[in-house]
Amino acid sequence: MKTYYLETKSCVMHEAKKVKVELKQVQYTDDDIVVQVSHGGICGSDIHYYHEGRVGLSIIKHPFTIGHEFTGVIYHAPQNSHLKVGQKVAINPSQPCLHCQFCREGKQHACLSMRFMGTAQRVPHTEGGFSQYVKVTEEQCFPYKNCKPEIMVFAEPLAVVIHAINQAGSLLGKKVLITGAGPIGCLLTAAVKAAGATEIVVSDITENSRQLALKMGASKVIDALDETIFEHYAENKGYFDVAFEASASVAAINSTVQATRQNGVIVQVGMGINLNRYPVDLMIVKELSWKGTFRFLHEFSTAVIWLENQVIDPSPLITSSYKLENIEDALITAANKKISSKVQITFD
Amino acid sequence: MKTYYLETKSCVMHEAKKVKVELKQVQYTDDDIVVQVSHGGICGSDIHYYHEGRVGLSIIKHPFTIGHEFTGVIYHAPQNSHLKVGQKVAINPSQPCLHCQFCREGKQHACLSMRFMGTAQRVPHTEGGFSQYVKVTEEQCFPYKNCKPEIMVFAEPLAVVIHAINQAGSLLGKKVLITGAGPIGCLLTAAVKAAGATEIVVSDITENSRQLALKMGASKVIDALDETIFEHYAENKGYFDVAFEASASVAAINSTVQATRQNGVIVQVGMGINLNRYPVDLMIVKELSWKGTFRFLHEFSTAVIWLENQVIDPSPLITSSYKLENIEDALITAANKKISSKVQITFD
Amino acid sequence: MKTYYLETKSCVMHEAKKVKVELKQVQYTDDDIVVQVSHGGICGSDIHYYHEGRVGLSIIKHPFTIGHEFTGVIYHAPQNSHLKVGQKVAINPSQPCLHCQFCREGKQHACLSMRFMGTAQRVPHTEGGFSQYVKVTEEQCFPYKNCKPEIMVFAEPLAVVIHAINQAGSLLGKKVLITGAGPIGCLLTAAVKAAGATEIVVSDITENSRQLALKMGASKVIDALDETIFEHYAENKGYFDVAFEASASVAAINSTVQATRQNGVIVQVGMGINLNRYPVDLMIVKELSWKGTFRFLHEFSTAVIWLENQVIDPSPLITSSYKLENIEDALITAANKKISSKVQITFD
Amino acid sequence: MKTYYLETKSCVMHEAKKVKVELKQVQYTDDDIVVQVSHGGICGSDIHYYHEGRVGLSIIKHPFTIGHEFTGVIYHAPQNSHLKVGQKVAINPSQPCLHCQFCREGKQHACLSMRFMGTAQRVPHTEGGFSQYVKVTEEQCFPYKNCKPEIMVFAEPLAVVIHAINQAGSLLGKKVLITGAGPIGCLLTAAVKAAGATEIVVSDITENSRQLALKMGASKVIDALDETIFEHYAENKGYFDVAFEASASVAAINSTVQATRQNGVIVQVGMGINLNRYPVDLMIVKELSWKGTFRFLHEFSTAVIWLENQVIDPSPLITSSYKLENIEDALITAANKKISSKVQITFD
Repeated sequence: MKTYYLETKSCVMHEAKKVKVELKQVQYTDDDIVVQVSHGGICGSDIHYYHEGRVGLSIIKHPFTIGHEFTGVIYHAPQNSHLKVGQKVAINPSQPCLHCQFCREGKQHACLSMRFMGTAQRVPHTEGGFSQYVKVTEEQCFPYKNCKPEIMVFAEPLAVVIHAINQAGSLLGKKVLITGAGPIGCLLTAAVKAAGATEIVVSDITENSRQLALKMGASKVIDALDETIFEHYAENKGYFDVAFEASASVAAINSTVQATRQNGVIVQVGMGINLNRYPVDLMIVKELSWKGTFRFLHEFSTAVIWLENQVIDPSPLITSSYKLENIEDALITAANKKISSKVQITFD
Repeated sequence: MKTYYLETKSCVMHEAKKVKVELKQVQYTDDDIVVQVSHGGICGSDIHYYHEGRVGLSIIKHPFTIGHEFTGVIYHAPQNSHLKVGQKVAINPSQPCLHCQFCREGKQHACLSMRFMGTAQRVPHTEGGFSQYVKVTEEQCFPYKNCKPEIMVFAEPLAVVIHAINQAGSLLGKKVLITGAGPIGCLLTAAVKAAGATEIVVSDITENSRQLALKMGASKVIDALDETIFEHYAENKGYFDVAFEASASVAAINSTVQATRQNGVIVQVGMGINLNRYPVDLMIVKELSWKGTFRFLHEFSTAVIWLENQVIDPSPLITSSYKLENIEDALITAANKKISSKVQITFD
Repeated sequence: MKTYYLETKSCVMHEAKKVKVELKQVQYTDDDIVVQVSHGGICGSDIHYYHEGRVGLSIIKHPFTIGHEFTGVIYHAPQNSHLKVGQKVAINPSQPCLHCQFCREGKQHACLSMRFMGTAQRVPHTEGGFSQYVKVTEEQCFPYKNCKPEIMVFAEPLAVVIHAINQAGSLLGKKVLITGAGPIGCLLTAAVKAAGATEIVVSDITENSRQLALKMGASKVIDALDETIFEHYAENKGYFDVAFEASASVAAINSTVQATRQNGVIVQVGMGINLNRYPVDLMIVKELSWKGTFRFLHEFSTAVIWLENQVIDPSPLITSSYKLENIEDALITAANKKISSKVQITFD
Repeated sequence: MKTYYLETKSCVMHEAKKVKVELKQVQYTDDDIVVQVSHGGICGSDIHYYHEGRVGLSIIKHPFTIGHEFTGVIYHAPQNSHLKVGQKVAINPSQPCLHCQFCREGKQHACLSMRFMGTAQRVPHTEGGFSQYVKVTEEQCFPYKNCKPEIMVFAEPLAVVIHAINQAGSLLGKKVLITGAGPIGCLLTAAVKAAGATEIVVSDITENSRQLALKMGASKVIDALDETIFEHYAENKGYFDVAFEASASVAAINSTVQATRQNGVIVQVGMGINLNRYPVDLMIVKELSWKGTFRFLHEFSTAVIWLENQVIDPSPLITSSYKLENIEDALITAANKKISSKVQITFD
């Protein structure tokens, strides 16, 4: 079978504070799917790789292309594929093995050999999507029609958010607290509303983020530094049925335990926290559940449908957009929470 | 304590085909709450009482005031009440005993001594709300501000619908079938959308109802008489994650079993059906759940919030409105499904 | 790779009332696993194939070896297998594809291309285990040590039963009704007890079956023909938290609806019923769930552990045992519910 | 109505290290129920009151009778009561208000005005059951027949344990870890087995407790000080489906997070811990749930039935028994975990 080669500029992370745009080659055959990437979104983990050279336990061991939020059009597809050249597609960056015990249980997101694009979790690292051209599998491609690509590129973080909601069960008619109004907290706000919650209170320490949360559908925003407001919500065994902790701060975790109601659920979305105190007895007496959530499963499909049908409009979250060549500026800007929510990259 | 008397015109059902507007007296003290009713909605059970003299096992034994969908303003409230004269209120027609085993389990809607306003379930029958003035308890009153009363009068059927949804668990990202597009099926359509479903297909035998379902948010409507369409949905162990059967027809029940997916849930909302066949083996092989739903619990509160916040707009369902004096015409019109969805009564 | 051949006597079903013991050949290589079967159990579906030439929609189209309840020892295994020649194994007769949508969701028992040994569900039919030698996969083999093979052969029907229990959620502290005390109803009795139920009432029309249910752990047995006893259980919205319908009779299905409590669950285990009436309104008013259950998933493993650890003792259910050559007598005897519960076959 | 008086010796706690046997008076009428207490069990909270003068946030403000695990016989009951003089009864120490929002939701154990006998949670403190005679309500009394009172006195801690299990959902076929083999951990062991778990591993730091866990049904016991064993269970995203943390040690909490499997549940039973580190990221990546459990609800009834039917035999846990007059010695002995599991008091 014939092999083809395609030159591509890629955003390659070498180590902390060292990211380069490099010329690489995509090698493919008639059987392969190649996507021409148009837009990318910078995620917190991309920022961590750049600033700290690691994300939690994933440490950069060798240069690799970053990026797991990206969208594009089909550049090449096999003749018999349902995908057609030129078709717009959202890309699910998950490549589970489909054979391990968790894949067989239908928990592909927990795959013991997961290859998640743009991460240093495994060695060799899994190449990401911040490239002009990327080879993917048919199962990773979700065609869409009407939505703009800079909107559809939110499919991945929105999938994360919907998966987090699914940890809490039905939100219909529920009162919900969200601590942290970064891009994830803001997408959560919109998705929690779309899931039928009747009241959504969002806390953050910056005014900028709070204003974005209001735009995304919050019933009310509160200053996370004002602890007195949580005292009010703590009365009579708590106010909120469900809380989403998306700030990864010890104080916020404490607030969720105070403010969540008897038998309520607290979903921990924010990672990287060094927890040095926790109100265990209060959690016991109120019989709260504290649940982890990680990545997503079939929720990617729901995210694509919601964006395509404008159930969720993430456009207020796009605070700036950079060309591929300026990836370093983009990563630096994205880390400044006072001015940035979601920073995007364009690849044309 | 002093006793007051207030004259009120009431819609009194005597027997099948015999409903009269009569002058009655409301007797109350300083401790009582009296509501001046402004709007009522005619429910399927009101129609059954009028046309057949019964609803299922509830048979008219003596004259009683009908009506359990109604809204009004506070006419009298105790001094220490949080309710104020002139305040707009939605009324929950449920009066559970709070003492029986089910009330103690938090299932007040299953109360063994439930007094549900406007029903002949118990003897003596429980007086309803189709009166100019009605005595209620503080717990039945849900104050609201901005919504029009002819919209808020949908709180009761919307509560029924939200309770039905709660039988199915989370609908987030789910594909949903609704069989029957009467007022309940149409409210279900809007509520299922508000609960985060990504696809909502509604079937009905009348074009009029199908058009209303589209207005209420259906992704697609289908003619229930065209059985071939369900064959398509039946392939590969079914298409829909959840079905709501709101038509009470044997054919529709069969369609839900065909079209619902492996391990799916079918919620039976429509009552009064004489089931003479059921695909038991198919239900077994696909491990479906067929669940009953009856009235509502805390969902009344969610319904009020949704109407107040315009999450749901039921206005397309109001097909006509009659004055109290024309209750008989209203009941006859409401029974004609070709022209009617929700028929309302005004009481001023 | 070298190919080996092994002669085996097999129980081949040709059509209704025509079963023969035939000499067949097992063909295998060094990579294959071959089991020498020692014991088999006759299931209701084997009886249906013999007496009616079909089981539900599965109709005999060509001769095939029956039997899906069987146990044996490893006759041949690859060098690198964890299975060793001579090792006792229970055999899971399920061979799912692992690729279809349901396999990927972790519902391999709903596999769209399931090959379930000894069934005529697909064409060509899937060969069964009533043979002296059978080729299986490593994943089908569950080694065990201490249990007798005539006990371990209950692993398959016990897995069916545990899967049925899992449809009902936790039984801890629950009151349970089981209608039908055939082999499945009796295994259910023991398994429901092992799952922590506090009261287990079993109904059947034959005294013989009721006595077996008592031996298997029923708190009380009742004559299913005495409908007055269900009236008692029907009071105050029902008595049982959970019911298992294992008789496939219309009267029993009706009794489960009468006797199950508000919000209770009824699991339909018995197949092949022609349902011509059902108390829909009562099911609605009590908000019951009627759920199908089909085969099993990971529950096979639990069944093996329970038998190995003597949590369940199915020995009272073995009412007779026949040599392979007498398969026809065995099938005829098994169909006589007055004298038979589980009929076994030996293959040495 | 006539009032009667009855002298009773009671175990009155004054402050830390000060407990006295005092003569008090029970005052009752013809309408009251009085129980003659025969046996009591010392709980961890009784020990905390004695040694520290407090249990968590409950601080001794005035002298009160301790004891919430006790059993006896009816000494006086109203004529129309279903309770008869001389009848053996287990006593549920819970006295919920039945009116607050949680009582109405069926969560009486979370009652905002709960009076739980023998606790200093409210002021004035709620008198306990370590008295010769105690006045209780009909709803607190659970008659029984065959069981010995020193066995039935385990009904209260067994109810706590069953409630903890109910936080984890069904345990059928599950692998379970229990950290801590005190009286609660040991009762958990037996109850987890009765709930259908297939493997139960129990860890503790004392040999004595480990031996008791084996007697109560553990599959295996491990030394909690040997951290290497948890490394083994931590492989491949964890081994146990469910963990019960009953030791209130930071190390044990950490072990449960390591050893619990993807999407598993950890129920926190042990109180009074000062948590200063927690593996948040691991909990997130494995999507674990950490749930509180507090007291019990309807589980008291299940506990009585299980003890009456000998599903659970707690007798190995009774390490010593003291007369009422020696309450101080009993409290001191009970605190010594090397020799004590459950210490009992007799009141005749």
